[in-house]
Amino acid sequence: MSGSSFGQMFRLTTFGESHGPAIGGVIDGCPPGILLSEETIQQELDRRKPGAGIASTARKESDRISLLSGVFEGVTTGTAIGFSIANEDQRSRDYSQVKDVYRPGHADLTYDAKYGQRDYRGGGRASGRETACRVAGGAVAHAFLAARGVRVRAYTLELGGIPASRLDPEGAQDRAFFSPDPQAVAAWTERIKEVKGQGDSLGGVVEIQALGVPAGLGEPVFDKLDARLAYACMSVGAVKAVEIGAGVQSARMTGSHNNDPITPSGFASNNAGGILGGISSGQPIIVRCAVKPIPSISQEQRTVTRDGQATTITIGGRHDISAIPRIVPVLKAMVLLTLADMWMLQAARRY
Amino acid sequence: MSGSSFGQMFRLTTFGESHGPAIGGVIDGCPPGILLSEETIQQELDRRKPGAGIASTARKESDRISLLSGVFEGVTTGTAIGFSIANEDQRSRDYSQVKDVYRPGHADLTYDAKYGQRDYRGGGRASGRETACRVAGGAVAHAFLAARGVRVRAYTLELGGIPASRLDPEGAQDRAFFSPDPQAVAAWTERIKEVKGQGDSLGGVVEIQALGVPAGLGEPVFDKLDARLAYACMSVGAVKAVEIGAGVQSARMTGSHNNDPITPSGFASNNAGGILGGISSGQPIIVRCAVKPIPSISQEQRTVTRDGQATTITIGGRHDISAIPRIVPVLKAMVLLTLADMWMLQAARRY
Amino acid sequence: MSGSSFGQMFRLTTFGESHGPAIGGVIDGCPPGILLSEETIQQELDRRKPGAGIASTARKESDRISLLSGVFEGVTTGTAIGFSIANEDQRSRDYSQVKDVYRPGHADLTYDAKYGQRDYRGGGRASGRETACRVAGGAVAHAFLAARGVRVRAYTLELGGIPASRLDPEGAQDRAFFSPDPQAVAAWTERIKEVKGQGDSLGGVVEIQALGVPAGLGEPVFDKLDARLAYACMSVGAVKAVEIGAGVQSARMTGSHNNDPITPSGFASNNAGGILGGISSGQPIIVRCAVKPIPSISQEQRTVTRDGQATTITIGGRHDISAIPRIVPVLKAMVLLTLADMWMLQAARRY
Amino acid sequence: MSGSSFGQMFRLTTFGESHGPAIGGVIDGCPPGILLSEETIQQELDRRKPGAGIASTARKESDRISLLSGVFEGVTTGTAIGFSIANEDQRSRDYSQVKDVYRPGHADLTYDAKYGQRDYRGGGRASGRETACRVAGGAVAHAFLAARGVRVRAYTLELGGIPASRLDPEGAQDRAFFSPDPQAVAAWTERIKEVKGQGDSLGGVVEIQALGVPAGLGEPVFDKLDARLAYACMSVGAVKAVEIGAGVQSARMTGSHNNDPITPSGFASNNAGGILGGISSGQPIIVRCAVKPIPSISQEQRTVTRDGQATTITIGGRHDISAIPRIVPVLKAMVLLTLADMWMLQAARRY
Repeated sequence: MSGSSFGQMFRLTTFGESHGPAIGGVIDGCPPGILLSEETIQQELDRRKPGAGIASTARKESDRISLLSGVFEGVTTGTAIGFSIANEDQRSRDYSQVKDVYRPGHADLTYDAKYGQRDYRGGGRASGRETACRVAGGAVAHAFLAARGVRVRAYTLELGGIPASRLDPEGAQDRAFFSPDPQAVAAWTERIKEVKGQGDSLGGVVEIQALGVPAGLGEPVFDKLDARLAYACMSVGAVKAVEIGAGVQSARMTGSHNNDPITPSGFASNNAGGILGGISSGQPIIVRCAVKPIPSISQEQRTVTRDGQATTITIGGRHDISAIPRIVPVLKAMVLLTLADMWMLQAARRY
Repeated sequence: MSGSSFGQMFRLTTFGESHGPAIGGVIDGCPPGILLSEETIQQELDRRKPGAGIASTARKESDRISLLSGVFEGVTTGTAIGFSIANEDQRSRDYSQVKDVYRPGHADLTYDAKYGQRDYRGGGRASGRETACRVAGGAVAHAFLAARGVRVRAYTLELGGIPASRLDPEGAQDRAFFSPDPQAVAAWTERIKEVKGQGDSLGGVVEIQALGVPAGLGEPVFDKLDARLAYACMSVGAVKAVEIGAGVQSARMTGSHNNDPITPSGFASNNAGGILGGISSGQPIIVRCAVKPIPSISQEQRTVTRDGQATTITIGGRHDISAIPRIVPVLKAMVLLTLADMWMLQAARRY
Repeated sequence: MSGSSFGQMFRLTTFGESHGPAIGGVIDGCPPGILLSEETIQQELDRRKPGAGIASTARKESDRISLLSGVFEGVTTGTAIGFSIANEDQRSRDYSQVKDVYRPGHADLTYDAKYGQRDYRGGGRASGRETACRVAGGAVAHAFLAARGVRVRAYTLELGGIPASRLDPEGAQDRAFFSPDPQAVAAWTERIKEVKGQGDSLGGVVEIQALGVPAGLGEPVFDKLDARLAYACMSVGAVKAVEIGAGVQSARMTGSHNNDPITPSGFASNNAGGILGGISSGQPIIVRCAVKPIPSISQEQRTVTRDGQATTITIGGRHDISAIPRIVPVLKAMVLLTLADMWMLQAARRY
Repeated sequence: MSGSSFGQMFRLTTFGESHGPAIGGVIDGCPPGILLSEETIQQELDRRKPGAGIASTARKESDRISLLSGVFEGVTTGTAIGFSIANEDQRSRDYSQVKDVYRPGHADLTYDAKYGQRDYRGGGRASGRETACRVAGGAVAHAFLAARGVRVRAYTLELGGIPASRLDPEGAQDRAFFSPDPQAVAAWTERIKEVKGQGDSLGGVVEIQALGVPAGLGEPVFDKLDARLAYACMSVGAVKAVEIGAGVQSARMTGSHNNDPITPSGFASNNAGGILGGISSGQPIIVRCAVKPIPSISQEQRTVTRDGQATTITIGGRHDISAIPRIVPVLKAMVLLTLADMWMLQAARRY
């Protein structure tokens, strides 16, 4: 039942609803001696901030992290790292509509089914706001992994059905929509404006690459690296598919095309996405996630009330048109957290 | 490191290599009072047996399960259920080739990287043979869930790029390739013969449906039902992508098309695949897995020796042409095991 | 490595050092619909506050809990409950002595050995201050269990070698030292004054009773109820022995004396301490903990510096003379947390 | 609910009832490259065999271990190690008495309360027979730890109230009752004969020492080394108290006597039992367990039937008079398993 923890050795536990006093969490298991500061984490948090782009809401949260423990004189001590992020935007609103009516595509109905009740303000625990804690955890995992030569980058491969090419994944970090393709930005902006005018929303595809991962990470037969990555990414709201390497396409290849030939200087291709038998091979790890369109739309939708009566709902207010780009740093964080955990599991057998 | 356990409450732990004395496992946490016998489990095991179809090897294993504990007078006692399956086909062979040469697409290289050594006979722990234990565990999960009205069925949606329609998922269980479409069988058989002649292999797509799952299963924010299903299915060797409901396609829809309208008599569509906010909604759960082609092919492939020298390998012997259909009961088992576990996690908060 | 979490279903994760900005934690898995408020938790926290009695320091912490999530409209929502407690007493002091010299009986040496460094201010993570988070978690477990008829009480059985009788365990809650014996209070007060004058410290024995626990809690063969209770209580700093029921004395009885006869109206004695075969029997659960004397004493002690040089240390400042009575609510909390967890594990098999 | 697994990294999962086809288990997480054979494990198993001494039953089980996986060419491969031990002594007996009547001091009543049913033959899962699997797991932990310089020895400190001195713990391994004191053997033998004549049984005290454990093992604040050791030992049936170092006596000392002075050449005493703040200090680890008398006695005892009627029971057949000496290798195994697990948890933060 305790579904708010992620990881076995490098473990993130989070708490917090959209409109409570604060969200936050605990990172337990991070080794001592890692350089870490609020600023390092804040930089990552700023990447997923609301209001950062055309696809996002105007909700203003400064999303300031407070580090509460586990860091002393600038480095981690090896003990639990506690942190919190205040919820600043708690304006009193009229929630009577969402309180009694289930929004299609949202978790309103299922939270009620599961818990018998829910904090309906702003989505409660099901709000995307909880992902800020994942980004904070990912920033700590980054600090740990960067010192070991691992680098993770995430970027948007597709938005509203319009693909980008992987021209410049390195530059994507500082480009609108985390786009690896400068050309795609204009087309995506256009598409978002169009859909916004229709009161509708868009989905997309995010790819995450991990470079510098040594061969040997992953714990067969169940905690394979690809299995843990799929779990990590699918746990992010809005993700509906996870692919590794060639992914869905590998089902349509023959073995002679799908197998990556091995040469003395490395693999000749990377359909495997850097993972063989559930263990990293030393090649770049490639994960791809399909992200569904934001369910909050201003078009009228059919639904039911809490007591099962037919009704319609038109969701007003300012909502994101797409989970992209804000979901990009979140998925990056989930890959970082997974790798840190698998790194330590592998390290445990070295002494 | 202990990656051989799956599940928190309803937990399967497995052991065993392809050519050791036996494979087997422990199912811990299964509630008492469930009707269970060796025959019940054997039926499921027989579905994934080698030699069961045109795509399979002629390896002859009777795969007889022995129940060693946890069942008394025909019902589970609530204590750990131990079982073993003898490895009968341990003929002495010449493994010098696979011992020193890494087969492309296999885990030879990564097991060596991880453990520094490996049992190279028949793939060792990385052999698909370990999935027999998953099927045994799934059969116990089935006994638990069937008594609670849950039914899981799995079928082949695509083989070698040739799609089937979902005409008759119910009949798929007893049809060749677990095909839901009688028409597809002939085309697939043809394709397999063709590829076999080329010394090559094929992949495909498997879909799993769970019917009768009540609303409320899943443990946000990390142990969401979809996250656990992705983890479960991706842990099966050869699976390279996992989709829930509309999956990859949802990334290309607008919100107004992707959202499933809610009516007093239920949802009007099921793009969500029966899961909202990581919690089951009461609709059928839909999971789809892309399966890569079998890496063992008789065409010559470039690779390296254990000490890094370039060489080529031509894999002789009889190998499956496709992991389908044998992977179908395995994926069904993984969904069953996941649902049993999530069921109990949800049940824990009821008293 | 992630040793800051306790419990599987009803799980407490804590963070925090003595002199960082705050301590706090997350309670995950608590079922929805439990009445809970900051005041309920505060009441328990106030019982372990510094400065509450003659054996305690004068350190002034208001130890005010802030509930940050998981409670809505006065009841738990079933989602993670986050909380924090600010560290108010962070006066700048001279820590040069404890920074470079290992205090005997403290964790200074072992934290350095484990982590290579430590937050030496006030004991850092090894400070007894972390137990406030256990008490907060225990208060939530209490809210859960009280509604199910379970009641836990803890009291001091012995202080500085002077025993109390179990005359009035019910009244102990509001008596000095949590003494079940009004007579013992004066003798203990006297003993503490005496030892304080000698610059020395005292240990004692705490007993915890759980009433109303139904038969059936405990998960053999490893997660037996007594095993989990021993783990829970021994995880509290200063505890050096845990006994169940007759405990150490049972080793000296014959079977005919130690066995508790069973009658239609219940057991005729309770040497078992309410646990048979690791499962609760329906009798009161009895746990007893031996608590070592506070290691901080103002007598001169032999020790070494961080770099291994012989030296002596005289610990000044105001320190508790005994962990009793402040440890009493902490041990009560650990028993509550254990029972809530085992309750849910057992509940999981009921549907 | 899955209480049949022990350990996080070095994990033992067991199964098996007294009278089913077999008992056995899986050791998962053992690093690769450790020398291991059936013979190594068999040696340890032989130490706890029935019929090994005057205090034991004449039940004849050869207790032959079969290693089923995880070992290749004489060394561990790093994958799951499966093993089984056949139950040979399954003679058909008349169990009608124990089927319907609860034996005092046994788990009959609590298993029925928990599971609603039980395998009543020979105690079922609650039989001491399951400890053979612990010993097998401990033998693997020993192989891992011995190569790292850790040595664990266990011996009987007290039997039937008659103490031994710690004269020769090294020789205890090969002495009757695992006695560290040659003089105690005769007195204990005499006491057992006497009590046997009275149809009664005896308890005792076992001490376990771990030498060569480096400073740094243990995971505060909950998974402290002492907490995990208490959990490990208390999970063994018949253990009613666990003490670390001075244990219960530390409650009666003043701090100036209880604190172990530190000198450049090490600690001047070991009241702490080798653990400070829950972390090993480099001193010998000392654990002491109080073992209750065997509940099966041939004297008449008051009890009830399954349906609550008053009755009496006189337990016939051959039963052990004391769990000592057979419990000694079991407790040694539990300490070994704990140390192996904590070793790996600490190792995980080294890379």
